[in-house]
Amino acid sequence: MDSVLKATHELLRSSGLSGISVDEISRRSGVAKTTIYRHWPSRSALVLDACAHMASPLGAPDTGSLRGDLLALASEIARQLQTESWASIAPSVMDAAEHDQDIAHVQALQHNALLAPFRTVLERAKERGEQSLPESAEIVASILGPLFYRRWMSREQIDGAFVERVVDRALG
Amino acid sequence: MDSVLKATHELLRSSGLSGISVDEISRRSGVAKTTIYRHWPSRSALVLDACAHMASPLGAPDTGSLRGDLLALASEIARQLQTESWASIAPSVMDAAEHDQDIAHVQALQHNALLAPFRTVLERAKERGEQSLPESAEIVASILGPLFYRRWMSREQIDGAFVERVVDRALG
Repeated sequence: MDSVLKATHELLRSSGLSGISVDEISRRSGVAKTTIYRHWPSRSALVLDACAHMASPLGAPDTGSLRGDLLALASEIARQLQTESWASIAPSVMDAAEHDQDIAHVQALQHNALLAPFRTVLERAKERGEQSLPESAEIVASILGPLFYRRWMSREQIDGAFVERVVDRALG
Repeated sequence: MDSVLKATHELLRSSGLSGISVDEISRRSGVAKTTIYRHWPSRSALVLDACAHMASPLGAPDTGSLRGDLLALASEIARQLQTESWASIAPSVMDAAEHDQDIAHVQALQHNALLAPFRTVLERAKERGEQSLPESAEIVASILGPLFYRRWMSREQIDGAFVERVVDRALG
């Protein structure tokens, strides 16, 4: 079913989520719609699977300090935002999630995957006894927020110095 | 031409930017395409105008302190993000801006309008002699970023306490 995922991926890149139909994916991949629906029960399931194959997996770094771990994570996300194709497709998922419950669910799953390494490094920091940490949802919002804002809203360059200031501000 | 803007607005709300065509707007508004193109040279110009009529204008507050001004601004943006229809359309503009230069230009103009009151309150703070302010693009990214993240990505509630912490973190 690689040809189906590949066709989905290509359509996502070229025209975003609104350009995706199972008809078109079937036409491009040469795989019958009935076969596609046997593997993926819905368009949303297929989109989620294609997205999961697009992003480089985000591991939890282990540098020995929370600041180091967050800096490594934020730097990797900044790199992906500026180079990987999922970054140009994410706004179409955000958009569709406003109108479509299934896609809102896809978005929540993607977001959860993005949070996982943050949870791991924050858990480790607690075990090491690092004190007076802000709540984890706050840290994540104050790191991911400015990165996303620069990528999709102000469309400014995200450089290493910016990432460092974002992390230091998040740690308060 | 109010009927054209109204039809554009309704289409934006119901299906986002991808649902917008001048054909469909002409059909809904009963105004001929040639007439529409006489008033708006392109689909993008029409979308920009419809968006400009949707958002409540964002004034520059004047509370006497930068913290007070930023808190007033951030609270008003948080309110609009959670209640006004432009907030559910913005992701479709972000999405289209990835693929379409004209819409990227529309997005840049909208973003600039959003920045204007921040520039005003930061300018006033400088005139009052408030010291050691972070750079204005940094302050804006660290305030708007977390608000946008919660509205369009994590889809968490944005309450007054969160807005206050965001502003305090931005001021460093």
